[in-house]
Amino acid sequence: MGSVSIYAVEGIDEISAGDALDVIIGDAVAAGDVAPADGDILVVTSKIVSKAEGRSVRADDREDAITAETVRVVATREHPGGITRIVENRQGIVQAAAGVDASNTPAGTVLLLPIDPDASARRLATALRQRFGVRLGIVVSDTLGRAWREGQTDAAIGSAGVSVVDDLRGGVDTFGQTLQVTQMAVGDEIAAAADLVKGKATGVPVALVRGLAHFVTESLDTPARALNRTGPTDMFRLGTDEALAQGFADGYEAGYLAGLAASQ
Amino acid sequence: MGSVSIYAVEGIDEISAGDALDVIIGDAVAAGDVAPADGDILVVTSKIVSKAEGRSVRADDREDAITAETVRVVATREHPGGITRIVENRQGIVQAAAGVDASNTPAGTVLLLPIDPDASARRLATALRQRFGVRLGIVVSDTLGRAWREGQTDAAIGSAGVSVVDDLRGGVDTFGQTLQVTQMAVGDEIAAAADLVKGKATGVPVALVRGLAHFVTESLDTPARALNRTGPTDMFRLGTDEALAQGFADGYEAGYLAGLAASQ
Repeated sequence: MGSVSIYAVEGIDEISAGDALDVIIGDAVAAGDVAPADGDILVVTSKIVSKAEGRSVRADDREDAITAETVRVVATREHPGGITRIVENRQGIVQAAAGVDASNTPAGTVLLLPIDPDASARRLATALRQRFGVRLGIVVSDTLGRAWREGQTDAAIGSAGVSVVDDLRGGVDTFGQTLQVTQMAVGDEIAAAADLVKGKATGVPVALVRGLAHFVTESLDTPARALNRTGPTDMFRLGTDEALAQGFADGYEAGYLAGLAASQ
Repeated sequence: MGSVSIYAVEGIDEISAGDALDVIIGDAVAAGDVAPADGDILVVTSKIVSKAEGRSVRADDREDAITAETVRVVATREHPGGITRIVENRQGIVQAAAGVDASNTPAGTVLLLPIDPDASARRLATALRQRFGVRLGIVVSDTLGRAWREGQTDAAIGSAGVSVVDDLRGGVDTFGQTLQVTQMAVGDEIAAAADLVKGKATGVPVALVRGLAHFVTESLDTPARALNRTGPTDMFRLGTDEALAQGFADGYEAGYLAGLAASQ
């Protein structure tokens, strides 16, 4: 509380498969104006994690890559430019194109998400805590669209040493009443805040966030996977058009049989 | 680019209907450590805007108030604590409980959203630009849940003098390729970032964001309403269970008629 500052971590060049990302990020942080301190959070764009981890694949057809990363289709829509597919991907995240990215990667290749962004975050956190001797946290961020809102925002797809949810359940407000807002997804808010400094078209893939030490934990077991909502509690597990069509097909079948029987 | 700082604006007490919110916010900012400068953004929790605008209503039953604010039901779900209703409200926002709030307001009352949060933002921006003689922007924030993500984040429901969308369409990435990410909802990212400083259980309803002058515009005509996605482009305008049921009913009717006809 009080204030939060977010700094761009400059000087990180193009990343290649096999690069020691913890060393590269550490060097860039060390060369910057802000010396890491307890409670700092580094927000790392998933793109450079993917590149270092060799998640770049040849793909003459990005659509094939998307299909391969898709566990379950949520909704699709055709538009002049092609087809938009909102799917649940292997990482358990519901997002357009399964998170497969053709930007900021050489033509003829696409970039898949890290296999396990939380594990990637833990590896980075372990190495950087060791290097700098401070309790810092790592958030791995990706860009997601949203239902009912135009545009995209960055969100947390990996986390180590950063609480991704601030659980306010049972708390009271200034009138002493039980708070209705139960859980703030602070991991996503941290990712979104960092995007304001990192930007998209520029090459700044890491930001340092200071002032949120109360969300930085000793334990690195703070998976961003906890932010994924799928399964029975997902009220939007299937798009409206898809669900209308599926319901119609099921209803037609049942109605047809009933109609046949009624005329006997 | 470079850095962003977010400061809590302390010293704003409980707001009552009819309060001159622009004066109260202005006084709190003036009493703080950070003198407003060109390019600053004040993020104001919608709650205090609602209170000043007399949007508190007697409500022995919060559910009745929600119904009154509902334009269209998107999805509902029963749970042990009651019924959750995701609806499109009069402001055009899709959110739980139509944005009706029973927290941080005296028992027996609920707080409706401002009738027109963008207009509220414009009034505040006009007054505060005049008072401080700087080009500042106003974002009015509210807390929204999300599809496919646990927890809530703050988002922009009103804006004046702040671009809520950063349109990157047609831009190129570091490899000279056309960017896939088309539009970043920076208004929502700014609101989310401010929440990290404002918090929920504490009484800090305003934050000052510095470092995003490139998003602050001369014109105050920058409605956050542009972030609402409803209508035909909304792939999730009806919840999955609701759409399955509606499709089933329609299909059953059609199938029944076909079954009757087939047995003639």
